[in-house]
Formats: sequence, structure tokens, C-alpha cells
Amino acid sequence: MASFTLHGIPVSRGIAIGRAHLLAPAALDVKHYLVAEEQVEAEVSRLQQALAAVHKELQTLWNELPKDAPTELGAFIDVHALILSDPMISEAPLDIIRQRHYNAEWALLTQIDELSAQFDEIEDLYLRERKADIQQVAERVLKVLLGTEQMLPKSDGGEDEFQPQMIVVAHDISPADMLQFRDRSFIGFVTDVGGQNSHTAIVARSLDIPAAVGMSGASTLIDQDDWLIIDGEAGVVIANPSALVLEQYRERQQAAARAKKKLQKLKKTPAITKDGTEITLLANIELPDDCPAAMEAGANGVGLFRSEFLFMGRNSKIPSEDEQFEQYKKAVVAMKGRPVTIRTLDIGADKPLDQSEQTALNPALGLRAIRYCLAEPQIFLTQLRAILRASAFGKVRILIPMLAHAFEIDQSLAMIAQAKAELREQNIKFDDGVDVGAMIEIPAAALALPMFVKRMDFLSIGTNDLIQYTLAIDRVDYEVAHLYNPLHPAVLQLISMTIAAGHKAGIDVAVCGEMAGDVKLTRLLLGMGLREFSMHPAQLLSVKQEILNSDLARIMPQTRKIMRSMEPNVIADAVEQLQLM
Amino acid sequence: MASFTLHGIPVSRGIAIGRAHLLAPAALDVKHYLVAEEQVEAEVSRLQQALAAVHKELQTLWNELPKDAPTELGAFIDVHALILSDPMISEAPLDIIRQRHYNAEWALLTQIDELSAQFDEIEDLYLRERKADIQQVAERVLKVLLGTEQMLPKSDGGEDEFQPQMIVVAHDISPADMLQFRDRSFIGFVTDVGGQNSHTAIVARSLDIPAAVGMSGASTLIDQDDWLIIDGEAGVVIANPSALVLEQYRERQQAAARAKKKLQKLKKTPAITKDGTEITLLANIELPDDCPAAMEAGANGVGLFRSEFLFMGRNSKIPSEDEQFEQYKKAVVAMKGRPVTIRTLDIGADKPLDQSEQTALNPALGLRAIRYCLAEPQIFLTQLRAILRASAFGKVRILIPMLAHAFEIDQSLAMIAQAKAELREQNIKFDDGVDVGAMIEIPAAALALPMFVKRMDFLSIGTNDLIQYTLAIDRVDYEVAHLYNPLHPAVLQLISMTIAAGHKAGIDVAVCGEMAGDVKLTRLLLGMGLREFSMHPAQLLSVKQEILNSDLARIMPQTRKIMRSMEPNVIADAVEQLQLM
Repeated sequence: MASFTLHGIPVSRGIAIGRAHLLAPAALDVKHYLVAEEQVEAEVSRLQQALAAVHKELQTLWNELPKDAPTELGAFIDVHALILSDPMISEAPLDIIRQRHYNAEWALLTQIDELSAQFDEIEDLYLRERKADIQQVAERVLKVLLGTEQMLPKSDGGEDEFQPQMIVVAHDISPADMLQFRDRSFIGFVTDVGGQNSHTAIVARSLDIPAAVGMSGASTLIDQDDWLIIDGEAGVVIANPSALVLEQYRERQQAAARAKKKLQKLKKTPAITKDGTEITLLANIELPDDCPAAMEAGANGVGLFRSEFLFMGRNSKIPSEDEQFEQYKKAVVAMKGRPVTIRTLDIGADKPLDQSEQTALNPALGLRAIRYCLAEPQIFLTQLRAILRASAFGKVRILIPMLAHAFEIDQSLAMIAQAKAELREQNIKFDDGVDVGAMIEIPAAALALPMFVKRMDFLSIGTNDLIQYTLAIDRVDYEVAHLYNPLHPAVLQLISMTIAAGHKAGIDVAVCGEMAGDVKLTRLLLGMGLREFSMHPAQLLSVKQEILNSDLARIMPQTRKIMRSMEPNVIADAVEQLQLM
Repeated sequence: MASFTLHGIPVSRGIAIGRAHLLAPAALDVKHYLVAEEQVEAEVSRLQQALAAVHKELQTLWNELPKDAPTELGAFIDVHALILSDPMISEAPLDIIRQRHYNAEWALLTQIDELSAQFDEIEDLYLRERKADIQQVAERVLKVLLGTEQMLPKSDGGEDEFQPQMIVVAHDISPADMLQFRDRSFIGFVTDVGGQNSHTAIVARSLDIPAAVGMSGASTLIDQDDWLIIDGEAGVVIANPSALVLEQYRERQQAAARAKKKLQKLKKTPAITKDGTEITLLANIELPDDCPAAMEAGANGVGLFRSEFLFMGRNSKIPSEDEQFEQYKKAVVAMKGRPVTIRTLDIGADKPLDQSEQTALNPALGLRAIRYCLAEPQIFLTQLRAILRASAFGKVRILIPMLAHAFEIDQSLAMIAQAKAELREQNIKFDDGVDVGAMIEIPAAALALPMFVKRMDFLSIGTNDLIQYTLAIDRVDYEVAHLYNPLHPAVLQLISMTIAAGHKAGIDVAVCGEMAGDVKLTRLLLGMGLREFSMHPAQLLSVKQEILNSDLARIMPQTRKIMRSMEPNVIADAVEQLQLM
């Protein structure tokens, strides 16, 4: 077993040491035969049961979706469920069984082949990905029909040397498959394809499992049961390492485990820099159920409650005012008086409530978030009333996404005033002084801050979108994902300008994008003047530790130096030096 | 005939007075019958001929595409041609004739119905628009089969009161249909739907025909042969005007004609402001054939040669170095020593060379322009060599689109150096001092100007894209088109910063987006310090006239006032006042 090292894209931190488990594309042995006349309905029912089983499987996947899994993942499962319910899958194959007496597998494959051929014919027109989805769905159904065992071994909980934990190696892993690994003994992912923001990467991070993607050729070079080390931070995979290398990595792994344990002791420690500046650490949450984790991590409140999660996976049914109110109230109560910042509906063509609405050529530049809410005032007013009602039970802040124009701010504020008036008329209690803030995530917003600070009570910088629009890239698009760079001088300037403008106007400014949870950038943001960080609860203690070890007096001059530079390599070096101060 | 006034969106200037010609959706009378066995092949051939005729029709449409028609229009026709060539249209109906002995129309409709049903089944998934395309193509074929006369009267050239010119009124007009109007007697367009940047609007502007779109209900409220006035500037349509109103508009129309005539006298006048500042006026062109129009309008050179037009409508075949060289040389020679600024390939997922490449979810944020060129170095090098070779025959400048990162600039310059080295090795002449410039069209670029001015010989601001990315909107998307605003304070700042940074570094800065050709913005841009405008040749004389009447001493203070404001209504008012100075 030759030792070799592969370099890919680091997407999830940590070190994993285990045996390779190659995930080969399932080679399904499908038999073709005709069923007897009297068996036809039994065969139809066999296929129906398999379809129902897969439907249930998808439902379970959906329900087991980690709270912190990205929206896209749910949408992906939604698409599979939609395909499964479509007559082309749910009915046409049944007809084939009835008409041609094919066995269920054959009937399904016949229909899929036909559909695939149709997709090939119009392949020129955007469709390739949907074809893959249809085939993935069909494969699931076939597996159920064939009673094929999941290839994945169940976890036995043991970790002795005869049962080493396994690292999944594959050309690519579908997000749905990936979710099934959760309770099993897999401890890392290696894929040939993918990038920083491929589904595999996003899911690995949300499961806190080391992963390295974009490892061209990994699935052919690595053999079943090869010993592997994934160095998640470096994006390196070492196959069949020498005893010495293995020992080194085990030590690093243990050191990391010790560090993690040490972090737990910081839960109740206030986040104060060495020079005595207090920093507010907030949590990003998706559902009220995330609040206990936020409290447990010692968050000073919720900096970003992504309310759209309440709206999803409901077959386009909008939750009623009461339903929403109960959820918001639950979060507010769970946070025990700490502020809960609820972002109003951030959906649109790319996070559709209803898949059929997706028609925009560039959904990221389309009718999203506040644009959508202003176009659908009833949906918006319902949400605003629900949020306002929750404000009677604790400290609530309203955060409006995707604002760019003065009239959008004014219209949003008018809608909030209207929602208040309606509640007042009904004698329903709410906090009249609820703060209203704006997400700064469009370049135009960061460049027109006076327009915002004049009208808003606080600002929250959504660095993910801000970076994407500023650089004109969609980081989900693997062809340009390498151009995503939080340290581009333009990005740093917009963030710095926003923090400065907020402070000058005497209003709070938070960062709630991924940059806030990246310990490598904590000092840079502190140096820019940021005093409020909002992040995934899992990142909170690491960031707090970084803050406790930071001295603003040393950081500030270095940050000013960084802000003066326009050369990416100079900036990257200087940010690295910040870590060492 | 009641007189009434409709308000819509002004999309193309000028006044049109004529009779309404309602364009109803064609109600095609299709007969269903079976053909005799011995007639089958004749029927097959009848359908084949119809298909060929439509193919030729599309080819003609493509060839007659106005030079200044937007890229999207050509792509649209391409899609129709692709659909027509697809076996699902070009073969399946023939089989239906052979197998079922249906007549050609019936066979075609049968196949279309089947395809439509398939599209309905997967309608949830992005497909609605393609279904409409397929139906439009089928309708064309049916019209040929049925020998249906075009509904449009041929122009008789006369304009007496018994043959008034006609204004097309429709719910919507497909771009392909629209192009057919060109040589006929239509003088204006009114549609129920559409926006500032719908196909109808874009085509109307390129044909210089008054149009008003977004006129909800126009096609039902207006009757055939109603007298109509389109006030293109106001976006107003007056039906059955009183004699007095008609007279007023005739006078305005004549005044406009006189003004147009007067403009012609400015061709040889240098563009110098009242206070003696000389301004450079350049032309935007798409093909070398546009050069005579540019020269005729008195352009000081070509500020933007959109080279991608040489690459399109060629069934994905990339033009060879020699082919490209001949075209670039033709432009250079035609401009008689005036500079020709050739923008390197600005294609990508949204202007695909090959339709099958369109897979990005947000093509505008994907692998476009220089990103594409750096990913396809052979295509880029071929173009660079061709451009460099043309530089031996006149003044050539190379303009790189979509730059945002320092490494992209460095890689582009390295590629140019490599192209030069290759030419040198072959002893092929070129201008070693050819200037290389960057499009400033991504917010990150405008915010990192020191990175650019250090490396580049000139800058050209692409306001169209810059506005879209800065505001995070896709203006082709009618749902957000109303958010497109060149006067957003963020946009004005980026433009102003770019002009200032260029001047400080002593390099030329031009604006080559639509703002440069808008006389309402000429003074604002002059006030910001802009000294180079590049626009469609048709706009050049109006802009020159505005420059001749401008006094920088009066404009500059007002512009500074505008730049200090963050309130859109204040800005809009102040820009209007600039016009009156």
C-alpha cells in the first residue's frame, strides 16, 4: 500500500483518521420479465409501495435535516419529492405495468429511459441538472424494489482498531445520501469534485465533519480500506501514512480535542478584549429550537433569526399569523430577555416558496427578500404583525434584508407602522419601541449609508451576499467559486465603511455573515471597529477565545495598514500577521 | 370613437401619429384528415418543405438583425433555430405522418401537444419559457403549411391621409415578429405588457421607433383603426385625440424633425464646451460594418467594439485568428487612424456561444467575459493575436471586460505578452505599444481603483453592468426592472470615483454604457469630470449638442451638490436643474 498525498479544497476543519470506504455508484441488477395477467395488480401495488417508501424516506430526510443545514439542501429534497409525486414517475410506470405487463423495475426503467431521452433532446436548454435529479429519484425507488441493502454499515459505536472509523471516498455525494450518514460511523468525506460551497462541503461543515473536496482522481487512486488522514484545514488527504505521520496527526487531533474541551470553560466568560473592550456575541438561528444551543454557547442574544425556515417545506402554504407568532414568541421566551433579531422573509426566486415561481434568469438579482415582501404586502404584513406580537414577550428587533433604495426603506417602515396600527385597533399588545434595522448586503447599501443610518435603528452586514454582489460572482457556481474572496480590498472597504458610518451615527452595527464566525478574521473585524458578531452557535466559543486574547491597541494600527492596501497578497499576509499579535 | 389616454412605460423617444393596427394572436384553422397511403410521402415532403421554409425565415431574420440589436435577440432566434432542428420537431412529426397517415398540420400539432404535456409535467422546474418557444416555432411552421398570409400589410411607401401609417397594438410582440415589421409602414408600438428593457422596448429603440409598453389593457381598450398618438418620451398613448391635441402633437413632431435636421449640421463641429474644454466622443460598434455610421456621425474613434458579435450565430464555431484579424483590420482601416477600442470576448453563460453550456443558476454572476477567457486560454490567445495583428494597421486599444481581481489583471496582461511573443516569433507585425484597458463594471473594480490604474493604460466604465451589480438587480427581469436607477447615489459615487482615480493617475477614463448616450445625463457626467463618452453612433450628435451648450463653470458646483446628496428625490431634481443651466 503506497503512501501518497492528495491536495484538494479544504472545506471543513478538523482531522479525521480512518479507513477509506469507497462509495461506488450503485450497480443495480435489474431483471426484466413479464408478469402474468393475474399478477399485474400485485406488481402495480409493489411499485406503489416502493414509491410510498421513498416518499417516506424523503420525508424522514427532510425532518432530519440538521437545523443548521443550508436552505438549498431542503430545496433539493423538495425537488426530489416533487419529481416523485409527478405523474411521470408516480403514474406512467404503473400504466406500463398494466399495459405491457412489465415487472415493476422494468416499467420504471422504461419510463426513466424515455424521460431521459426527452431531456437529451432539449438538453441545450438548462435541463441537465433536472435529469440527474430524476435519475437519482428513480435509483432510490429501484433500490427499494430490489431490497438492496444500504451500502453503509451501521455504526456499532465502538472505535477499537478492528473497527476503525470510516472515511467516505466518492466521485461525488448527493446531499440527500450524505444526510443518511449522520448516525453512522463515518468521520470524514473526500470527493473528486466540488468546491468550497458545494453541497458536500456545506453539509460537512454543518455536521462538523472534516472534509476535502475537489480531490481530482481521489476515488480512483484510493483503494477500499486504505488508511486515510484528512487534514480538513489544509485540504490534504494522506493515504497509507507512515507510522510517524500517523502519530503526528493523532497528536494534532488530540490537541484539537483538548482545545475544544478548554473552550467549553469559556461559556460564562464575558467576551472582553485584553484592553477591556466588551464585545457582543450573538447567534444565528433558523428555528426557535436553535435557541437552547445559542443559550448554551453563552450568546448575548440572537443576531439573525432566519424566519424563512418557518415558511419552507410546507408545500407553499404560508404559515398563519398565529402560527408565526407562536414560533417567534417561543424564540423570544427561550432567549430569556436577550434580544432576538428576526429577519423578515428572505425568500425569492432562489429560495422559492413555490418551485413553479422560479422563472428569473438570474434569481440572485431578482425579486427576493424585501423586494418580494413589498410586492406581496399581505404576506409581509402578516409576518410583521406576528413579529410585533412576539415583541410583547421580550426584546425583539426587526431586520429587513436586501434593501438598496430609499423608497424601499420608507415603504418597509410604513408597512411596520401599518402593522402596528392594525394591532392597536385590535387592542393587541406589542413593544412600540421595537428597533428596526437593515441588512447591508447590497453594494449600493454600503455606498449609501447616510440614507440608512438616518432611517434605521441598527445595521447588520450580511457578508455572504455583500461579497457575492460586490465581486459579481455566485459562489454556488463552482466555475467561479474560486473568485469568492472576503479579503478583496473592495469588500473590506465596504465593511469598514459600514461599521464606521453606524458608529458615527450612534447605532449598532453587527456582522452576521460567515465572516463573523471565522476566527481567522475576528481580529481584522475588531480592528475595523466591529463590536457585534453574529454567528452559528457552534462557532461562538472559538471566536470568544480569540477576542479574549486580542489587544485592540495592537490590532488597530495593523488593521489600518491592511485597509490602506489594495494588493491582495499584501492584505493576506497582513491578516495572517494579525493572528500572531 | 371616444378619446382616452393611457399611461405606460416610455421606452423609445419620439412621437408617432397613426392608426391602430391590432395584432391579435393568430387563430389558425387547422384541418385534421387522413392521407391516402400513396400520398404519405408527399405529405411528409410538404411538412419538410414547411420546416425548411421556417428555417430559412429564421436565417433571414438573423441576417436582418439590426446591427445595434441587443445580443439577446440573436440568442432568441438561435433558440428557435435549435428547436426547429431538434428531432422532436424535425423528425417526430414526419414519423407520425408515416405511421398514422395524419395530414402534416395534424401530425405537427399532435407532436406539439405531446411535448407540451411533457413540459406541463415538469413545469415546476424552470421550463415554462421554453414551452412558449416551442409553441412559437410550431406556429410558424403551421402558418407556412396553411399558407396563411402575414397579417401585416406591405408598405406602399405612400403617406397620404387615405393610407395613414400604422401603429402596432398588441398584448405582446415577440422579438422575431417585431423584426419583420422593419420594412413595413409601422411607425410605433404599444403593448399591454413589458418594461423598460423588455425585448419590445430594446428593439423599438434600436429601430428608432416610438413605443410605449406596460400599457395594461391597451389591446382591449383600443379598437382597430383608432387614431393614436404615442408620446414616446412621456410613455403616453392618446386614442382618438381631438383635432386640437392632434395639431399640438403634429407641431411637436415637426419641431423634433427640424431639431434632428439641425443636429446633422454638427457633424464636423468639434465637441467643445462653452468654456473651451474639448470632449472626446466615441462610438460603440458591434461589427466593422458599423464604422461608416460612426465616421458619418463624426466620432473621434471607436470606444467599444463588442467583439463577441463576430463569435455569434456561427453554431458554436469559433472564428479563426485570420477571420478575426480581417474583421478587426477592417474596422481599424475604416476608422482612418482614429483609435479603435476592441473589447475582448464578453460572453458567458448569458451570451452563450454554445447553448448547451448554460447551466449556471445565475449566469450574470458566473463564468463570463474575462473569467471565461482565462478559463479558455486558446480562445483568448487567438483573439489577442488577431487584435494585435490589426494594430499594425492603425490605432488599436485592447479593453478587458469584467475584471475584479488583481490576479485576473495580471493573468490578462501575461496572456497579451504571450500573444505578442508568439507574433514576434513568427515575424508578424503589430503595435508593441498597444494600450490595454479595463472595463470598470463590477463594484469591486470601482472600489479597488489603485489596483487598476497601477496596471492599466485606460479605463472604460460599463455603466449598464455596474448599475446592475451595484443594485443587485437584473434589469432584464421585469419584476425588478423598476429598481434599475442610474441616479442611485451609490452608482454616482462609483462612477465619480473612477473618473477621479483615472485622472489622478493620468490615464483616460471613458463611459461606454447607456448613460453616455443619454443627453439627460451628459452634463452630470461632464460635471463629474468625464471627458470621454462612448455611445451608439445615433446618439452622438445629440450629446455633442448638449456639450456645445454646456458651461463647466456652472455645471461643476451643481454636480458637487448632487454628489453630496444621498436622497434620490433631491438628486433627481438637481439633475433636472442641470439641464436648464
